[in-house]
Amino acid sequence: MIKANNTKLKSWIEIPENSDFPIQNIPFGIVSFKNAEPRPATRIGDYAIDLSALSDYGYFDDLPIEDFSPFYQPILNDFIEMPLKLRRTIRDKISDLFNHDCPDIRDNEDQKKLIIIPIQECKTHLPVFIPNYTDFYSSREHATNVGKMFRDPENALLPNWLHIPVGYHGRSSSIVVSGAQIHRPKGQILEKNKSTPILAPCKLLDFELEMAFITSSNTKLGEPIPLEKTHNKIFGLVLFNDLSARDIQKWEYQPLGPFLSKSFGSVISPWIVTLDALENFRISQPKPEKKLLPYLKFKEKNNYDITLEVYLKAKGKKKTKISTSNSKYLYWSIHQQLAHQTINGCNISVGDIYASGTISGPTPNSYGSMLELSWMGTKKINIGNGETRTFIKDNDEIILRAYAKNSNVRIGFGESRVKILAAKES
Amino acid sequence: MIKANNTKLKSWIEIPENSDFPIQNIPFGIVSFKNAEPRPATRIGDYAIDLSALSDYGYFDDLPIEDFSPFYQPILNDFIEMPLKLRRTIRDKISDLFNHDCPDIRDNEDQKKLIIIPIQECKTHLPVFIPNYTDFYSSREHATNVGKMFRDPENALLPNWLHIPVGYHGRSSSIVVSGAQIHRPKGQILEKNKSTPILAPCKLLDFELEMAFITSSNTKLGEPIPLEKTHNKIFGLVLFNDLSARDIQKWEYQPLGPFLSKSFGSVISPWIVTLDALENFRISQPKPEKKLLPYLKFKEKNNYDITLEVYLKAKGKKKTKISTSNSKYLYWSIHQQLAHQTINGCNISVGDIYASGTISGPTPNSYGSMLELSWMGTKKINIGNGETRTFIKDNDEIILRAYAKNSNVRIGFGESRVKILAAKES
Repeated sequence: MIKANNTKLKSWIEIPENSDFPIQNIPFGIVSFKNAEPRPATRIGDYAIDLSALSDYGYFDDLPIEDFSPFYQPILNDFIEMPLKLRRTIRDKISDLFNHDCPDIRDNEDQKKLIIIPIQECKTHLPVFIPNYTDFYSSREHATNVGKMFRDPENALLPNWLHIPVGYHGRSSSIVVSGAQIHRPKGQILEKNKSTPILAPCKLLDFELEMAFITSSNTKLGEPIPLEKTHNKIFGLVLFNDLSARDIQKWEYQPLGPFLSKSFGSVISPWIVTLDALENFRISQPKPEKKLLPYLKFKEKNNYDITLEVYLKAKGKKKTKISTSNSKYLYWSIHQQLAHQTINGCNISVGDIYASGTISGPTPNSYGSMLELSWMGTKKINIGNGETRTFIKDNDEIILRAYAKNSNVRIGFGESRVKILAAKES
Repeated sequence: MIKANNTKLKSWIEIPENSDFPIQNIPFGIVSFKNAEPRPATRIGDYAIDLSALSDYGYFDDLPIEDFSPFYQPILNDFIEMPLKLRRTIRDKISDLFNHDCPDIRDNEDQKKLIIIPIQECKTHLPVFIPNYTDFYSSREHATNVGKMFRDPENALLPNWLHIPVGYHGRSSSIVVSGAQIHRPKGQILEKNKSTPILAPCKLLDFELEMAFITSSNTKLGEPIPLEKTHNKIFGLVLFNDLSARDIQKWEYQPLGPFLSKSFGSVISPWIVTLDALENFRISQPKPEKKLLPYLKFKEKNNYDITLEVYLKAKGKKKTKISTSNSKYLYWSIHQQLAHQTINGCNISVGDIYASGTISGPTPNSYGSMLELSWMGTKKINIGNGETRTFIKDNDEIILRAYAKNSNVRIGFGESRVKILAAKES
């Protein structure tokens, strides 16, 4: 039992109904406000809690912490690298401080002013420096849909897919945090019935609904992480929108995979939700259809029951939900992904991001990309007010949301939001 | 005319005949010796020159340097980020100090002892922290050979290849410096006539002979670098051995590209040779067969005439040259690669590595991989002493070397050396 997950805890901070951030969540991120430098924070209800201020006031002094500098960095990498046991005591401590029966901060107006910042006064930043980024392809439904559209409807899955958590190296420099505005990318596109490409703004701009995990250790080259040890190497999860330029992708991706169709911007949610906070939402993953090699065989419930939602908001309009999926559909768990990533001896770093690939559910309203929702542009996606889409238009906002929920508690992720601007004039 | 390139310069340090490191080279790297911390250095002949010691003695004090900390870092990223003009004055200054007519260090035994370290007493380190790594596929001969072997001998090049500098995101964590020992990787392999993969040590272990450039700027997402501005964003070049597990690659790479077949270790040479030092070796690249889109059109001589050599050294045997190629064969130049990398708005970082892809020449003895040299294992590669190879065996060393040479000077790269050890027992 993880102490901070106790559903009997109730914060003295007012939590709006259906908030993603009850006192049982305690996610971690980086915020700045007014003229202050970016610093580590957690979020409770609609307030950011400044961890450097908590440290300044000595609230972590009774914990076995030797180096307090991680509470003062503009990225979480050093914080994340602390041992899991210590990170747990910090999360528990925060939970204690903001529980209804703890007067220390609650009854100290001066401290409150410096520690608790209304979220609308904060800017959230990329929570980690990201040394490496991998994008997996772990949703069977998504891989099947893509295979049906682009290859063979009868043999949609490639022969390796049921044996191997297929993935590829991604670009880390272009990962940004929610709230970004990204210009529609330009690239080489081969128009229908042409043999020579043009350079043009992407016409088939898409989102991909993904989750991603962030690693908490540096390992050595040549040392695989076995499945039974992956749990301790993963800090937590974020939402991940892997924006994709389908027309650029189609022309460029043979034979070495997607490249510029992906590296113009990927958008994560700002609050990293710890695996600890999600412990009560573990769920069995789909039964493997093929016999797995021993390094991928699992015993435990390794998936998470997290509802995923996608909203599209056209300029001046209300946002409309266009998909509802769930991370439980993933055929390959985050633990299998990490065991596979390292089976060849590949080393990992603190702050690496490993994304799931598009998470599509079994029904058309649960597909995780517009490519699938519009079935390659052949079906119109209703976005409300009589408007439709097949792919993303300029000034559209794409909002991903996620939450795990049972009768006692809702642990949410906030959102990954991005606005697409027109391509830049050149 | 770049001052430090003057072929009339002659160092008071003795330079062995055919050395890669005459006073006209002045490459940059990171070394350590005895108990000292890793620090920036250059190399002249068989000596490393400690740049932090030069700075300590005030030899850079007359240059317009505001911050001397880049001379004391264990990585070159801050050094590389200095403006090109300033880096040029530093290179010129070093050149002055070690020219035969400069007595300052030459005649000061105490300083000499602290500044000049015999290379055999030094350990070379990874010269940069590498935020991002891309591997291009820019040799037409290599792409054609691979296409012939794996696809269609009559249509070996895919339709996009002559229009686009094809490339893919690589793994930066597994890039190591020359001198590494790397265990043969394990991975999923589908044996002939089988439908279920096994987990086994790679049997078809290969090298790839590549050059790579290292970038010197951080750019913003959404801001392409046009071809006429790429030169100022590139610090220099290194050798790059993109070790490849062909059997793992074959099973995993569809549809998203090579992944674990590449991320168990890539080996760069330790000394970054500046574009300045190579200025006199610029050469025209192959004439484009297709009309290029404007963002890839070039006027200048953008390739480099650099001889590339591959040696294989079996345990207890002498090394044998198994291939001689040249970077001038590259169909796509480093400038086209960088313009393409950013055309979609992708941002770059200081220390990024962009590798060329295997550089094969037109003749069978100039192929840049064992896959090609042994034509998929069908031909034996003579490694001397009556021994042959088709792919790399345990305890083999692969040594890449490179140099640009004319009647006046030889600017070399040293080597990228790696020893392959047996797969680890699990």
